[in-house]
Amino acid sequence: MNNSRGSGERAILNRIYEGLRAPSPDKHKTCLRVGMGDDAALWHPRAGHETILTCDWSLPGTHFLANRHSPEVVGYKCLARAVSDIAAMGGEPRCYLLSLALPDSRSDQWLDGFLNGLRKASRMLGCPIAGGDTTRRDEILINITVIGEARRGRAILRSGAHPGNAIFVTGRLGEAHYGLRLLLESSERVSSGDKRLRKHSYPEPRLAVGLWLATHRLATAMMDLSDGLSSDLPKLCQASGVGARISEHALPRVKIGIKYADKFDATELALHGGEDYELLFTVARNNVARIPHKIAGVPVTRIGEIVAERRVVLERKNGGVAGLQNKGWDPFR
Amino acid sequence: MNNSRGSGERAILNRIYEGLRAPSPDKHKTCLRVGMGDDAALWHPRAGHETILTCDWSLPGTHFLANRHSPEVVGYKCLARAVSDIAAMGGEPRCYLLSLALPDSRSDQWLDGFLNGLRKASRMLGCPIAGGDTTRRDEILINITVIGEARRGRAILRSGAHPGNAIFVTGRLGEAHYGLRLLLESSERVSSGDKRLRKHSYPEPRLAVGLWLATHRLATAMMDLSDGLSSDLPKLCQASGVGARISEHALPRVKIGIKYADKFDATELALHGGEDYELLFTVARNNVARIPHKIAGVPVTRIGEIVAERRVVLERKNGGVAGLQNKGWDPFR
Repeated sequence: MNNSRGSGERAILNRIYEGLRAPSPDKHKTCLRVGMGDDAALWHPRAGHETILTCDWSLPGTHFLANRHSPEVVGYKCLARAVSDIAAMGGEPRCYLLSLALPDSRSDQWLDGFLNGLRKASRMLGCPIAGGDTTRRDEILINITVIGEARRGRAILRSGAHPGNAIFVTGRLGEAHYGLRLLLESSERVSSGDKRLRKHSYPEPRLAVGLWLATHRLATAMMDLSDGLSSDLPKLCQASGVGARISEHALPRVKIGIKYADKFDATELALHGGEDYELLFTVARNNVARIPHKIAGVPVTRIGEIVAERRVVLERKNGGVAGLQNKGWDPFR
Repeated sequence: MNNSRGSGERAILNRIYEGLRAPSPDKHKTCLRVGMGDDAALWHPRAGHETILTCDWSLPGTHFLANRHSPEVVGYKCLARAVSDIAAMGGEPRCYLLSLALPDSRSDQWLDGFLNGLRKASRMLGCPIAGGDTTRRDEILINITVIGEARRGRAILRSGAHPGNAIFVTGRLGEAHYGLRLLLESSERVSSGDKRLRKHSYPEPRLAVGLWLATHRLATAMMDLSDGLSSDLPKLCQASGVGARISEHALPRVKIGIKYADKFDATELALHGGEDYELLFTVARNNVARIPHKIAGVPVTRIGEIVAERRVVLERKNGGVAGLQNKGWDPFR
């Protein structure tokens, strides 16, 4: 630790405070009356709204690689990942809590980079810090809690899908995992300039899409794609007590560079690649025509249909139909 | 892992869900519309209230010893510690989020004990689980976020103390650290039956005291004693821009067993011992007479006075006065 900047919990907290405190307009907007520095934060909920609560681990080796991902990417992504759960409910983020454990060796330059990335996400997502907990540890540990809001009764759950509903996804699937694979196969650090790595490093929670769907009451069920379609679609189906049939042909898939065409299969990446943080949602048949090709600038693609039989099947391009194997990400597998 | 109970994230989540779900009366009371199982939880804030947000690490080696503390104690204490921050604001807990990382070897019997302890705290504190995040890890990692509420404008901050205010604490100080020391010096596991270890193992957040003070608008500043009086009182003073003078004579100190009288100094334990989770609060001079000797059954003791000079001093029993050395707990020191 740089002695000139002091050590001890107070010094670390001061750096976090200085690095992350929101300018006053944000403070007003989010109704954060007391932020960092007291026993707890105080926040004014809006009338007519429900509060959305979510938390997410970001752990080295599991969610990031301390020697491959820049501290900026780690900082940006830990908040973006957690905010994606707010998007998945059709809500808006209001503020977040940061729990951070740090080794001494990471409490200077690494911490600065981390706070830069976190501040970038915080500003982009309109989600200022409200408080947190900091401690010393032999490895970096991060946990983020995000507080969001949705108009009362408008939040979109996983459990509302019905047979006959159309299934949609935003964006292109498999892009984040493609970026991760490229990163793992290169010997260099993530370059934030490499477009192929962009979605892996700087995912964009689909807040505007989720909010649009909630406002127009058009989605019967919704979740974000964090573990991969083959892991996540069964979760939505289970919550709704239904099954699904999706079409390989319809899947909006990652574009693979010519150099890697033999190495990666776009369909496999789209089905099983995690961390896209796109939205998966279902729409009643009589509302399908009201779903535009793009929402808030993000492409939206119909990929299949909810069915009564509690099974998720994939219709292959060759016409074959088979159960979709769950090969997405499961930390306990 | 016990195969008959299944493995994988879903199985672990099911066990947590089964182990912790609240009976329906609690669900109604806390206005938790959607709990575990969706992307995020949905919660209805009460009209006329502010939301209190706090989070706390509970990490092995730092906050508990996996081979000395029973999983019940770990489970109980991780929630009780976090709820104490709600008590410190004069608020009431409403629900919590559990972030848990577990090794396979802890995902069976240990997990059951942990959930038992957590459920005990959850019921005692009226604070049901709302959601969380679970992952696999080579060591146990716990982070708890608690959501609480206080009537708008009634929450008690650290920053309101003024020169001339009387300083009070609840309970007896040093009891938790005494228990920890006894535990470390014995060769056995914590016995929940040993009264001397009770406060160390099963601390009781002073919710009723905090709420009483907030309701009667009697405290100008308040915080909970988690790191020890000599660490925490300076934090309250710094937040308020004041100093303090406390009297050794007045300190409500832990009672040391005869066997240990030579080994432990009750004053040292009371000044520097952490984890008592008692409340430290200040009261305007003209309100001091309104503070009873006990609030909600908990003894309340006046230990000194807030002063203008930004320094914390201790008046010794022998009449000497000296700056109070900060020897409480600091994870970065």
